[in-house]
Amino acid sequence: MTQSAKITPVILSGGSGTRLWPMSRPDQPKQFLPLTAQQTMFELTLARASDPTKFADPVIVAGARHGDLIEAQLGNRSARIILEPCARNTAPAIALAALAVEGAMLVMPSDHVIADVPAFMAAIDSAMPLVEAGWLVTFGISPDAPETGYGYIQSGEVIGTGVHRVARFVEKPPRADAEAMLASGDYVWNGGIFLFRSDAFLAALESHAPAMLAAAKVAMAAAAHDGQRITPDEAAFAACPSDSIDYAVIEKAGKVAVVPVSMGWSDIGSWDALHDHGEKDDRGNVTGGDIVTIDSHNNLIRSDGLRISVSGVSDLIIIASGNDVMILPRGSAQDVKAIASARAQ
Amino acid sequence: MTQSAKITPVILSGGSGTRLWPMSRPDQPKQFLPLTAQQTMFELTLARASDPTKFADPVIVAGARHGDLIEAQLGNRSARIILEPCARNTAPAIALAALAVEGAMLVMPSDHVIADVPAFMAAIDSAMPLVEAGWLVTFGISPDAPETGYGYIQSGEVIGTGVHRVARFVEKPPRADAEAMLASGDYVWNGGIFLFRSDAFLAALESHAPAMLAAAKVAMAAAAHDGQRITPDEAAFAACPSDSIDYAVIEKAGKVAVVPVSMGWSDIGSWDALHDHGEKDDRGNVTGGDIVTIDSHNNLIRSDGLRISVSGVSDLIIIASGNDVMILPRGSAQDVKAIASARAQ
Repeated sequence: MTQSAKITPVILSGGSGTRLWPMSRPDQPKQFLPLTAQQTMFELTLARASDPTKFADPVIVAGARHGDLIEAQLGNRSARIILEPCARNTAPAIALAALAVEGAMLVMPSDHVIADVPAFMAAIDSAMPLVEAGWLVTFGISPDAPETGYGYIQSGEVIGTGVHRVARFVEKPPRADAEAMLASGDYVWNGGIFLFRSDAFLAALESHAPAMLAAAKVAMAAAAHDGQRITPDEAAFAACPSDSIDYAVIEKAGKVAVVPVSMGWSDIGSWDALHDHGEKDDRGNVTGGDIVTIDSHNNLIRSDGLRISVSGVSDLIIIASGNDVMILPRGSAQDVKAIASARAQ
Repeated sequence: MTQSAKITPVILSGGSGTRLWPMSRPDQPKQFLPLTAQQTMFELTLARASDPTKFADPVIVAGARHGDLIEAQLGNRSARIILEPCARNTAPAIALAALAVEGAMLVMPSDHVIADVPAFMAAIDSAMPLVEAGWLVTFGISPDAPETGYGYIQSGEVIGTGVHRVARFVEKPPRADAEAMLASGDYVWNGGIFLFRSDAFLAALESHAPAMLAAAKVAMAAAAHDGQRITPDEAAFAACPSDSIDYAVIEKAGKVAVVPVSMGWSDIGSWDALHDHGEKDDRGNVTGGDIVTIDSHNNLIRSDGLRISVSGVSDLIIIASGNDVMILPRGSAQDVKAIASARAQ
């Protein structure tokens, strides 16, 4: 097996993570925090695609301000780090990586949980024959609730073992539509995880977003190289149109397949999700840090330093980070943005 | 008016204040904190009896570890500070002061709120003829609820304008008894505030607690003097029986009078009391420190440094002090002791 026959993990670290304020902040967003384990979400994402018989060294695409954090969390691992001079959404970020990769690339957000990694690896194995044939493959998350915050993908005809042609994409749906799709059984969530040959992606980009490809090529040709860091040319990349890979390419391309997979996935999109996915004590509390609970139930309580003590409270989200303490009821984690914004003033 | 004809304030600063953990701690108990105003409760107590036409310089009786705090909060004020080498409850503390004072002394805990100081001063004026005649006078707080945590005093015959002989003392009563006393209208709470001539108190002490008086005399005779600080002899004071002024003297003495007074009194005995007495915003929140509230009602939220942000929570007590954050429902402030004790382990 040659190096180019291995899959190159491409880890996208572009999120700013305000939904997990006050722990997640622009200087240290969610993916760099140990939210679900002793390791950070970025470290878990790296570890997930680290089998050297299957994967090449990863390429990381991140915001320029996070270069030091990424190198610290990479440890001794070899990688290439593409530092975006400005944020241009996922399609340009993936274009930068595709210009640096030969062969198959596995695009993964850096801040998702995948509890069942063997299931993920099996899905990758299922996808590879289609990938080699030039298809763009997306992994579809088996839905367990009528979520209105995700895009949905309808599976079409079977074109390989466990692989379907995509019948259609559905943007974040109204509740009733989400319920109908969940009930129908042939829709999955779009989890933003992709597998394709870099040349297949670049060809699709050329067809559907040629200005984006052109800007990315100029930015990479004029990139600054410093050790493992690659910084695309700022002016060229600033001129690149901003768009998601879904809108710019996947929803328009012809040979797009989906591999439905049930792998304990979560994007940990809110503090509520962290309670849902966390390990609970016998009273349903999920805690992290120096926490004392007395007669308290079903709370999420996390601290990265301060001591938190509660008595007689239930169904609260209590987060202490640095100099900040945030408290709100479980089920209202979407209100974090209003709090973060009040504190940013 | 000679100096000895003025009243000497005697401020008792012996409390350790665990009921207001985490702000109140052994090294910095409740009376030294700005809980109800910009000034600390000790400073407010000092200010309450500072009219130089009426009051002499105060005598403060405090734990030895708090000498520096007291001097800092006294500022430029002249005072004598009696530093107890060990805690022996209120009767010995007042005995030490009585041995250092000529004439009338006004004994006040350092950690009570009195919102209506003119009413308090008027009550003192009413009491003075009896005080001059050798009576031990206590101020009875007009009750507004059937509290079971206070002692009660039944007012007997009128013996002066606004002054009654004490008919009887009632220890912390069961709820039903408290309700009956509140309904009867002739009971008041024992607030621990006293006015008497020092010689009258010492005479009563000689009659009812001679060992206490003897130990206090030895301790003061052998006291160390250092500027305004007086440190009674440790061995002598350690040998002093420990008892409250109520048990040791007031409930046994003959000439004991009560002046009922409605003066906005509170002992701020819990975080709940601080919500009751605090200034509320238009949603019933009492806040102190760097606090943001969104859609939140009837909370007590205080911080001495950390930023606290809440959304959608009601009827909580949230206290941040130093490295500690404590959260519990309003109405359960008695559970603070369990939390503080869990944290002390």
